[in-house]
Amino acid sequence: MIKEMDLQQLLNELSSESAAPGGGSVAGLAGALSAAMVSMVCKLTIGKKKYQDSEDDMKKCLENVTKMKEEFLLLADRDAEVFNDVMEAYRLPHGTEEEKAERSNAVEEATKRAALVPMDVLRRCETLAGLTRSVALKGNENSISDAGVAAVMAQAAAKAACLNILINLSTISDEDFKGKLKTEQENVFKTVRDITEEALQIVKQKI
Amino acid sequence: MIKEMDLQQLLNELSSESAAPGGGSVAGLAGALSAAMVSMVCKLTIGKKKYQDSEDDMKKCLENVTKMKEEFLLLADRDAEVFNDVMEAYRLPHGTEEEKAERSNAVEEATKRAALVPMDVLRRCETLAGLTRSVALKGNENSISDAGVAAVMAQAAAKAACLNILINLSTISDEDFKGKLKTEQENVFKTVRDITEEALQIVKQKI
Repeated sequence: MIKEMDLQQLLNELSSESAAPGGGSVAGLAGALSAAMVSMVCKLTIGKKKYQDSEDDMKKCLENVTKMKEEFLLLADRDAEVFNDVMEAYRLPHGTEEEKAERSNAVEEATKRAALVPMDVLRRCETLAGLTRSVALKGNENSISDAGVAAVMAQAAAKAACLNILINLSTISDEDFKGKLKTEQENVFKTVRDITEEALQIVKQKI
Repeated sequence: MIKEMDLQQLLNELSSESAAPGGGSVAGLAGALSAAMVSMVCKLTIGKKKYQDSEDDMKKCLENVTKMKEEFLLLADRDAEVFNDVMEAYRLPHGTEEEKAERSNAVEEATKRAALVPMDVLRRCETLAGLTRSVALKGNENSISDAGVAAVMAQAAAKAACLNILINLSTISDEDFKGKLKTEQENVFKTVRDITEEALQIVKQKI
């Protein structure tokens, strides 16, 4: 599992000529790094007299983000798994017409599952974006650049997730599935972008 | 050192109430993740007959990016070190006028050194941005989303580095130092943003 690898080993795995783990896992890792920054700002705020009014918000924020960090790591692993399932489907026999149809169906279903993992990352980025805005607004101002980095990484995770949704959709035939996922992807991304940009504006005013 | 930590441990360190490692280290990590994606696309391109014309470019690109990945990791560690040096300077005695002046000078010098580390990250992002464009243009098209993720992460690394340059500059008194670094930061960032956006346009056309 990715979280048990040391960083050097993880980067070697990502850098290798094996296509998984790849960009989809990096999307999850970017989300986890953003969540870690939100967590740090929360911890540097909770218990400080100056930020007494933010205390309850920061505690809730910390609870959410701690769970999300784990979820992003699991999604980073999951992305590599579903990619390998797609590759496995492509390796099915395709000699006879029947085999061809079975293989084509298996590839389609595996690719749908593969598209849903970065969509899960993107959906979590929407919640995460709101948390980065909270720490930018109410967190310890000594850590304002860390709140900004949290927003930058949440937006990067969302962008990376979108690319991975789109590459999977490009080989799916089911137009209904494609249409729905594409619309959700566009809407959720727009929200993430707007909220993280708002967070970054707050950060820049405070720096 | 960061690269010897497993990912769970690294995320725990980043999430903790200790302010270092923080956002400056995340900038370096984002750069390393981008470099890993460039490396993967290069390796999936080199030796493929279809991409024979890209072979030399991809080999050069791989050589550059392998070195950069290590440099980004070292800068992630270095960022935590220089931050701790600033904190140490703040802890110097400041009872007498002489002590106050000495402490103030030590803080100023340590903060200058701290500002130069994210500037080093940002400068490397300029080179890295060009490499992400190269793999988007000439890399294996089966890995086009990974080339896109490389561009996304290079831009995120640059944005995170900028926030860390600005937060350090905000407490520096030396106007000459501030002016020069601010101008360089703005110029380099603009270049990184333009090149990574160009890379992303290429990727979106190919997906």
